[in-house]
Amino acid sequence: MSQESVIVRVDSLRDFVVKVFQKVGVPEDDAATIADVLIASDRRGIGSHGVARLSRYVKGIKDGVMIPKPEIKVVHETPITAVVDGGGGLGQPVGVWAMNYCIKKAKEQGLAFVAVRNSNHYGIAGYYAMMALKEGLIGISMTNTAPLVLPTFGKEAVIGTNPIAIAIPTGEEKPFVFDGATSTVTRGKLEDYDRYNKPIPLTWATDAQGNPTSNPREVLENLLERGGGGLLPLGGAKEEEGGHKGYGLAVLVDIFTGVLSGGLYGPLPYKDKKAPSGVCHFFGAIKIESFIPEEQFKKSMDNFINILKNSKKAEGKDRIFVAGEKEFEFEEKYREEVALYYKVAENLRSIGSELGVKADF
Amino acid sequence: MSQESVIVRVDSLRDFVVKVFQKVGVPEDDAATIADVLIASDRRGIGSHGVARLSRYVKGIKDGVMIPKPEIKVVHETPITAVVDGGGGLGQPVGVWAMNYCIKKAKEQGLAFVAVRNSNHYGIAGYYAMMALKEGLIGISMTNTAPLVLPTFGKEAVIGTNPIAIAIPTGEEKPFVFDGATSTVTRGKLEDYDRYNKPIPLTWATDAQGNPTSNPREVLENLLERGGGGLLPLGGAKEEEGGHKGYGLAVLVDIFTGVLSGGLYGPLPYKDKKAPSGVCHFFGAIKIESFIPEEQFKKSMDNFINILKNSKKAEGKDRIFVAGEKEFEFEEKYREEVALYYKVAENLRSIGSELGVKADF
Repeated sequence: MSQESVIVRVDSLRDFVVKVFQKVGVPEDDAATIADVLIASDRRGIGSHGVARLSRYVKGIKDGVMIPKPEIKVVHETPITAVVDGGGGLGQPVGVWAMNYCIKKAKEQGLAFVAVRNSNHYGIAGYYAMMALKEGLIGISMTNTAPLVLPTFGKEAVIGTNPIAIAIPTGEEKPFVFDGATSTVTRGKLEDYDRYNKPIPLTWATDAQGNPTSNPREVLENLLERGGGGLLPLGGAKEEEGGHKGYGLAVLVDIFTGVLSGGLYGPLPYKDKKAPSGVCHFFGAIKIESFIPEEQFKKSMDNFINILKNSKKAEGKDRIFVAGEKEFEFEEKYREEVALYYKVAENLRSIGSELGVKADF
Repeated sequence: MSQESVIVRVDSLRDFVVKVFQKVGVPEDDAATIADVLIASDRRGIGSHGVARLSRYVKGIKDGVMIPKPEIKVVHETPITAVVDGGGGLGQPVGVWAMNYCIKKAKEQGLAFVAVRNSNHYGIAGYYAMMALKEGLIGISMTNTAPLVLPTFGKEAVIGTNPIAIAIPTGEEKPFVFDGATSTVTRGKLEDYDRYNKPIPLTWATDAQGNPTSNPREVLENLLERGGGGLLPLGGAKEEEGGHKGYGLAVLVDIFTGVLSGGLYGPLPYKDKKAPSGVCHFFGAIKIESFIPEEQFKKSMDNFINILKNSKKAEGKDRIFVAGEKEFEFEEKYREEVALYYKVAENLRSIGSELGVKADF
């Protein structure tokens, strides 16, 4: 971490976050779930989805667009699928609930999928996918998000960064955990570059006219004001470089989350900033034994990971990674303490003093 | 099509392809299936996966590495999943068989997935996914392929172009059909550029040392000789531009196809050119009513597609496409006739004269 970070104790930070959510009306269990998901993100090195989100959640609750004690309803159910209405609550409690539901059903039936509508931001997609790993299952988690991304050849942000997370059990090796936005990068990356006045690569975002730009500030301002332009799908602006594939994947995520749940998709209700976000999720769990013996699968995964990591390195590179590996190393380092960007820590303290919660971390 | 194409009648071409496969020992039904899948690809404008493959298939059968009358076995089965051994046969017959199995089970049980091992090249992934559309189901199809793609920071092609195809039913609009390699482009694109001596974008492939290159000839020769380097994952060589996401997706496809079927994955048996390819597939079908009413889903899909297509265009662009749209337009144009690259047509005629099949198209 850079010198601009402060190191805080995980247990104290968790206590603080739980108390903040209780203060704004979230039941203790749900508050604990939200704290766990947010802090897991900081521990994995994904600060943009960690406790930095606290102020937005608190504001959402205060503004009445996030419901602190939602009524979570199973709208439709079969032995292996369900549609759940999140009641406009925060994404983490309904996400954990739905993923546990998938895990339970998958253990009984071989696999299960749940689509959730009428929810909110749920933090890192990977958290839910990884819940399946403890049970030796494959875990799947996707979400749509506020519209920030352009269709190929478009200049209007009508789709989200729509991440896909898939967690795969292994034997001796660390689990394979893919967790990525279907845009080239998320908005947080542009904020990082803007902070240091660094130009962004041309595959990241466009100006208001839909032309690739290296100016992150311009993009961030336009997104805020809905002035046109936005983030580019994975692959960038051109079909020649595969940008239409990132765009297609983003739409697929919206179909599995928003359309298949009977909820909102694409631009969501963005024209009305006072409306609930309408964010939707999709979860799945798959028992390996539905296909082949678990031990055989895990042995093959270990072997595959070793083939990838031990394959020949490009000039100037000395290591090949597999999905999730960097995050696991981060997590091992940050077991008891976690690094927060100093402005995030300041912001938490100010939320604490507003709500009368001591920031004792 | 360019002036280098020749127009041939679809029905005559189909007759020819069926007869060629029968001549090398493929049963008539299977030969018809293979012909249908290959010609569907040509009709959709994807010449690289169409009848241009005929010579490789015929050679594979002659060399004994593709089995013309394979024994297809269900190795493991649950009410909603199965693992199938393709018996080293061509990919199309087992692919169609497995997808029909998914469709039947999904109609009964709500959804179903089948992993296939010990198969071969199966043509365009989208063909199988689209089979589900006639029944109003979501269709999924993936395959691993010969190793042509590098891991991020690698210079050894240990993964395939591993495409993902997902077909989504709609109401009034054309179905949404995503069908794309997880590499930026497939080898066929490099061959196209090489043919016209055009430099390739730097996100497509690397030289033998793993450095991005604009020289397609160099890459193609290195791939053939396994001299190092290869195609880049979607996003290119750099993590900064999301190349690790394309790489992660490619590995996921290998996990669902090769690992989960108990088959081969990653580099497959590439060191032994005389060995069967060991290619594996994964198929799925999902009934919409497992989640929400079909009519509601289709109406939302139509609406979503219209939102995307009617959103504001980037400077200099007058149209936004959705996945599959270009291919459907191609297909409508090529109902009775199809355009083949003249060298492909020549090659077919030479196969015909070798095998004593009249090339009457």
